[in-house]
Amino acid sequence: MSGGADQAETALAAGLRAGDRRALAKAITLVESTRADHREAAEALLTKMLVETGRSIRIGITGVPGVGKSTFIEAFGRHVIEAGHRIAVLAVDPSSKRSGGSILGDKTRMETLSKDPAAFIRPSPAAGSLGGVARRTREATLLCEAAGFDVILVETVGVGQSETAVADMVDMFLLLLLPGGGDELQGLKRGIMEMADLIVVNKADGDTEAVAGRTAAEYQHALRLIRPAGDDWTAEVRTASSLTGKGIAEVWQRIGAYREAMEPSGALAERRAAQARAWMWSEIGETLLADFKADPAVKDALPDVEQQVMAGELPAGAAARRLIDTFRGR
Amino acid sequence: MSGGADQAETALAAGLRAGDRRALAKAITLVESTRADHREAAEALLTKMLVETGRSIRIGITGVPGVGKSTFIEAFGRHVIEAGHRIAVLAVDPSSKRSGGSILGDKTRMETLSKDPAAFIRPSPAAGSLGGVARRTREATLLCEAAGFDVILVETVGVGQSETAVADMVDMFLLLLLPGGGDELQGLKRGIMEMADLIVVNKADGDTEAVAGRTAAEYQHALRLIRPAGDDWTAEVRTASSLTGKGIAEVWQRIGAYREAMEPSGALAERRAAQARAWMWSEIGETLLADFKADPAVKDALPDVEQQVMAGELPAGAAARRLIDTFRGR
Repeated sequence: MSGGADQAETALAAGLRAGDRRALAKAITLVESTRADHREAAEALLTKMLVETGRSIRIGITGVPGVGKSTFIEAFGRHVIEAGHRIAVLAVDPSSKRSGGSILGDKTRMETLSKDPAAFIRPSPAAGSLGGVARRTREATLLCEAAGFDVILVETVGVGQSETAVADMVDMFLLLLLPGGGDELQGLKRGIMEMADLIVVNKADGDTEAVAGRTAAEYQHALRLIRPAGDDWTAEVRTASSLTGKGIAEVWQRIGAYREAMEPSGALAERRAAQARAWMWSEIGETLLADFKADPAVKDALPDVEQQVMAGELPAGAAARRLIDTFRGR
Repeated sequence: MSGGADQAETALAAGLRAGDRRALAKAITLVESTRADHREAAEALLTKMLVETGRSIRIGITGVPGVGKSTFIEAFGRHVIEAGHRIAVLAVDPSSKRSGGSILGDKTRMETLSKDPAAFIRPSPAAGSLGGVARRTREATLLCEAAGFDVILVETVGVGQSETAVADMVDMFLLLLLPGGGDELQGLKRGIMEMADLIVVNKADGDTEAVAGRTAAEYQHALRLIRPAGDDWTAEVRTASSLTGKGIAEVWQRIGAYREAMEPSGALAERRAAQARAWMWSEIGETLLADFKADPAVKDALPDVEQQVMAGELPAGAAARRLIDTFRGR
């Protein structure tokens, strides 16, 4: 690394330690870059800052469009800031490639929150595969923690496998639902209900307050039937209104209860260690596969072999072996 | 391949085409072997037989110990045989390494069924990783189809990721539950409920018949709340008794209905093509990772790096890069 780059990195590190939001934004831009020298600087910065990370609760949040995610995050964010915390809101949206950041990209969203010095809002990295977006969000999480943000919200729109990717990088997963229930699940990926540690029926206000209460009770009952209880935590359902603020404090309280249930037993630390290990292996796996796919002989043979497998003309095992032999130059 | 091996393969292929159960057992033993020459012969045999495969309904089945899987399969198997079909029962149990086949290994299980010439029962391959067990079971499925078995049941005990592996190799997934409900889910992996296409509350007889009916109704209601409906099929709940046979015919009828819902739209063919493609890529990924892990320099560096990642001393991204550089000999 050049001396100049080294100095820049030292300045970034100092800015992060001071909790400076501009330094944080710059550092995240650095980890999002795909340039080789940037990548090297990003890894050096992350390695240096790692000791400052981990002191936050990492919360994944999802829900169909229209469920009121932005207004919920706004109300929730204001509440945790009033309680003395600093909140960072990140996003995972692999579909934001085309739109240049379809979620969190709109500056009018979370208007109050985004102006608060105790809040930091960052749209989804607008490039690449889900794996790439997920890696950059994991690294952004670490940087936010190093900058003193102790509540990290990772928002996802639930496209493709993005919910699973988010679940693999957070401590707990929060699902927002609308009062009424059932139909909106159409927009969610199968499996999401079993990932949620806390379900919040939103818009529990005015005309929909009563139905929100009934919806919550129904889901709580259904969950008890359908989902095994965890050793340390069993999924809960609550109601909240981003409009009146009713229930928001309780959501934060239940997040605290989750932490109290998971931390003393070491379950949370274990989960984070397992996530870090899995992340390393998934990076290795992706790199190996990328090398494989970039091999000229493989590139040449692949379309035909893949086509034969999908048409049922070649068994998958034999196809895999043929391509591996090609890769090894046999 | 030597001429002798070639002759043996031709004899096996002829035996399979004739629907001979002994040839089928031999062919499965061949695909289960890890010897390089056996593997080559197995792939040649599978490639040759591929055109004879696919004409079956592939059904995954799971449930906690005590739910009555064996007696259910016995009753179900007799029913489909009486309806003019031939049924093969395979198993995926990666834990059977130690016990030498903990499920289906006991000859006293499914006693009547195992004696029926229209049935073929094969315990789980007793070796290796889940990936290996899954591959051999996929290949055994193809061989069973080539031998004219048109109903394939793949049983799993639900250890580790085995249910997911089975779901990835079958057309539909059947979950057995006990009357009463809820508590037994403890023994199942999170997510299994959302994988099931058909849920059967077993032991709907005598004292437990009424409660089985109530359990089924409750689960049907919970599923409607909690799980998005599919485009072609929405999960159903039924009751059955392996003792009295009540409901067994209906289970088979619902499997037929599933097939009718999934086949004309092309959804089933699409699913099988996607499964074959995913299987090929998972084999490639596993082989590349195995090569990586077998590299002496990687082997040397790995324990320390992995330990640092899990202890939070090294970011996963930097760790992955360090190991990849080691592998590439940098």
